[in-house]
Amino acid sequence: MPAERGCRAGIVVTGTEVLSAIISDRNGPWLSQRLREAGIDLIQILIVGDRPEDMREALEAQARAGADLIVTSGGLGPTADDLTAEVVAGFAGREMVLDEGLEERIWKILEPLRVRWPQLDEDAIRQSNRKQAVVPVGATVLEPVGTAPGLVVPPADGTEGPTVVVLPGPPRELQPMWETAVKTDAFRSATVHATEYRTGVLRLFGIPESEIAATLRVLEADGVPLDRLEVTTCLRRGEIEVATRYEPDAESAYERLVAGVSVRHADTLFSVDGGTIDDQVAELLLAGPTTVATGESCTGGLLVARLTERPGASAYVLGGVVAYANEAKTDLLGVPEELIAAHGAVSTEVAVALAEGAVERFGSDLAVGVTGVAGPGGGTPEKPVGLICLCVLAADGRRLVRSATLPGDRGTIRDRAATVGMHMLRRLLLGESDGPDAAPVEAAPGTLDGPRTSA
Amino acid sequence: MPAERGCRAGIVVTGTEVLSAIISDRNGPWLSQRLREAGIDLIQILIVGDRPEDMREALEAQARAGADLIVTSGGLGPTADDLTAEVVAGFAGREMVLDEGLEERIWKILEPLRVRWPQLDEDAIRQSNRKQAVVPVGATVLEPVGTAPGLVVPPADGTEGPTVVVLPGPPRELQPMWETAVKTDAFRSATVHATEYRTGVLRLFGIPESEIAATLRVLEADGVPLDRLEVTTCLRRGEIEVATRYEPDAESAYERLVAGVSVRHADTLFSVDGGTIDDQVAELLLAGPTTVATGESCTGGLLVARLTERPGASAYVLGGVVAYANEAKTDLLGVPEELIAAHGAVSTEVAVALAEGAVERFGSDLAVGVTGVAGPGGGTPEKPVGLICLCVLAADGRRLVRSATLPGDRGTIRDRAATVGMHMLRRLLLGESDGPDAAPVEAAPGTLDGPRTSA
Repeated sequence: MPAERGCRAGIVVTGTEVLSAIISDRNGPWLSQRLREAGIDLIQILIVGDRPEDMREALEAQARAGADLIVTSGGLGPTADDLTAEVVAGFAGREMVLDEGLEERIWKILEPLRVRWPQLDEDAIRQSNRKQAVVPVGATVLEPVGTAPGLVVPPADGTEGPTVVVLPGPPRELQPMWETAVKTDAFRSATVHATEYRTGVLRLFGIPESEIAATLRVLEADGVPLDRLEVTTCLRRGEIEVATRYEPDAESAYERLVAGVSVRHADTLFSVDGGTIDDQVAELLLAGPTTVATGESCTGGLLVARLTERPGASAYVLGGVVAYANEAKTDLLGVPEELIAAHGAVSTEVAVALAEGAVERFGSDLAVGVTGVAGPGGGTPEKPVGLICLCVLAADGRRLVRSATLPGDRGTIRDRAATVGMHMLRRLLLGESDGPDAAPVEAAPGTLDGPRTSA
Repeated sequence: MPAERGCRAGIVVTGTEVLSAIISDRNGPWLSQRLREAGIDLIQILIVGDRPEDMREALEAQARAGADLIVTSGGLGPTADDLTAEVVAGFAGREMVLDEGLEERIWKILEPLRVRWPQLDEDAIRQSNRKQAVVPVGATVLEPVGTAPGLVVPPADGTEGPTVVVLPGPPRELQPMWETAVKTDAFRSATVHATEYRTGVLRLFGIPESEIAATLRVLEADGVPLDRLEVTTCLRRGEIEVATRYEPDAESAYERLVAGVSVRHADTLFSVDGGTIDDQVAELLLAGPTTVATGESCTGGLLVARLTERPGASAYVLGGVVAYANEAKTDLLGVPEELIAAHGAVSTEVAVALAEGAVERFGSDLAVGVTGVAGPGGGTPEKPVGLICLCVLAADGRRLVRSATLPGDRGTIRDRAATVGMHMLRRLLLGESDGPDAAPVEAAPGTLDGPRTSA
C-alpha cells in the first residue's frame, strides 16, 4: 500500500471533441502511466468540453479531491476557444502577461508556414502568436514542441493549492513536453512527497482469470504479504496480465509472488519481465536467424500485419498469402482441391496445407497456417462460429497443430486467432513440437492445451 | 445551440484498471454518443478508481455540475470491491434490500457454470449471488445480460437530485442494458427536458482541416446561420470528419452547410450520409459484383485485413499476397527482378507490377499494389520515410497510379497507406482512371491529386 500521504494528482482532459467521443483520448491513459511510474497517486481523470466554466469547475474538483498536482491537456491553440492558460491563471490566482521573448520564439517557429502560404494574413498570424505568448506571471514556460508553449503553474505566492502542469492536446506535443515538465523546479517541489515505486508485469496465456485470483488467495494463505503489493489482473486480447506496483522494501514479497505464479502456472506463464508475445516472437526470430511466412484464411492478413508491425521486421518476415477464396488456397498455396472437398476449408488438414504451401512458396524456415469461421455467418453445428484451426510448421517438418473454439464477435475471433498463432510460433521456436504421428489437439477456448480444471 | 436548459448528464466510469490505464475505457465514449443522440448534454466524463469515497465524491461532483442524469459503468461484480450499487443508494438516500426474485433469477443464470465446474464452492457462489441481488429500495432493476443487474435509481422520495443509471463494466453487457434503461419510466422522467436533435456527418479526403474552417467562415459571411448548428471538425486516420448536431427547425441551415461544402469541395467530399470509405468500397464491390485482391509490401497485410473486416467479405475479396521480401515479390507476384533493380522496390513501377501480379494470380477483377518506406529506417534523400507508391488496376487495364509522402510514425504510415488504397479503389470503382499514357501523379501529403492552394 502507498504511504499514508504521498503525492496525489488529477488529470483534466479538455476538448469538446474528446467529450463528444469524436476523437478518443490518448492523453489520459498515457499521463496515468507516467504518474504511476513517478510514484504519484492518480485520483481521477476528468474529461470536460471547451467551456471555461466547466474547465474551472474541473480544477476546483481536483483541488477538493486533494490533488497536489493537476495535469491538463488541450486548449492551448491559437484560437479564441483555447482558454486553458487563462482559466488556470485565474484558478492559481495569477495575472496573465505577455512574454515578449516567447512571442518572438513562436514567431520564428511560424516562419516556414508563412513562407509556404504567403497568402495567409500576417496580422491574423501575429495576433494568434501573441495570444499563445500571454502566460500567467510566475509560471514556468515549457518551450513549444508544436507552436503552443506549456506551463507549470504553482499557486500564487502566499496561497495554498495544487500546482498545475498545462500541456497541449496533440500527443506528439504533449509527450515530449511532459519529459521537460518533470525536470522543472516547480514540478519537483509540488511532487516532493512522491513515493518510490517499482513495477512488475507477468503475462499468461491459456488460463482463465479466476485461476490467478485463486493463486493469489493460496499465496496469501501461505504467508506472502500481498498487502504490500498492489496487484491488478486483467484480460487483454485473450492473455492475462498481472501488473504489480510496490515500494522498494516489498521487493521480496514480489519475488515470492513471481515464484508462486511460476510454480503453479509453469505451462501458461510466458513472460515475467513484461515483454509481450510479439516482443518474444520477434526476438526469437531475430536470434535464429529464422524467417517466417503465413498462409491465412480467416485472419485475412492480421497475422502477417502483426508480424510486420515492428521496425526491422523485414529481417525475418518474408511475407504471407491471404487465401480467402478456396481457389486462392489451391492456386497460390497448393492446397489440394480434394483436401478441401474431403475435410472442408476450415479443418486442421487445410491449416497444415496452408502452412506447407507458405513454407514452400516463400522458402521460409517457418510458416503459420490459419483457417476458421470468423462469423457472424457460416457456422454449422460441427463447425461453429469461432472454430479456428492452426498449424505452425518448420521446413524440417517439426510442427504444432491446434484447433479451438473462440468466443466473441468477428473482430475478436480474428484478433484472438492471430494471438494463438503468435503463441504457437513461440512454442515451436522454443523447441516444442508434436510427435510425428500426433493427432491435432482440440484445445479449450483461448488455450492451447485442452481443457484444464482449477488447481 | 441547445435550448437554454435542456437535460444535462454526467458519466462516471469506475475501475482502478481503467484509471491506471491497464485497460482502456470504451464505455465513456460509447455512452457519450448515445447521450448525444438522445438530445442530452454531456457535462463531463469522470474516471475514478474502485474506492467508495472517490465514487461518492464523483457522484456529488456531477450533481454540483448540474447533472439531471448520471450514468455509471462498472463495480457491479460479485466481489467485495464492487460497491457501486451501495454507494449510489447512499447518494440517492435509499436503503439497500434483498430482491428475492432477482436472487433466484441470477441463480438460474449461474446454473451452467455450476454444472461445468462442479468443484466450485456452492456456498461462495450463493453469497456472491445474493450480493448482486441486494438493490436500493425503489430502484428500477435492469435484468442481467451477464450476471450483474443494472439499476435506474431516482433520488429518494421528497428529495431533489439526479437520477443515476447504474450499468455493468463489460461493454457487451453495458450496451444492451442501456437500451433497456432508456425505456424505463424512471429514465424517461429524468430526461423529460431532453432536446430533440438531428445529426449529420460529412467526410472528406485529401484536404487540410484549415480549409473546412475557411469554408465555414465563408458560409457564415454568406448568411448561413451557423449559430443554429453545432459543427465539430476533426482529422481521423487522414480523413476529415465534419459532424453536426442541430435542432429539427435548423434543418434548412444544415442543408445550406452541406450544399456549401459540396460546391467548394466537390473533389474531396466523398460521403454526405456518414458512410465511411470502407462502407462505400464494400457496397461498390458488392454491387458490381467485383472481386478484389491485393499485392502489398509496406502495409504488410493491413489492406487485405481491412477489406476482410466486415461480414460477407468473402463475396468480393479473393485474397492478397504480402510480398515483404523482394524474392517474394518476384516468386509470388511475378514482379521482374530487373524492374526492382532498375527502379527500386519502392517505386510506382513496382506498385503497378504488384497490382498486375495480384490480378493475374488471383484472377480478380481489381487489385491494389502498394509499396513504400514505413520506417523508421530505410529512408534516403530520394525516397524518404513515408514515401508510398500505389496502383489500383482493373483486369481490363484501367488504372490509377499515385505516390505521396505521408507524415507520422511507422504505424501511422502503414495505416494511412491502406486508407489511400481504399480511396483509390473507390475512385476506380466509380469510373475514374488515368489516361493510357499518363505519368504517375505525385500527390501532396495525405491527398490523391497533388498540392492544392486555399480557395
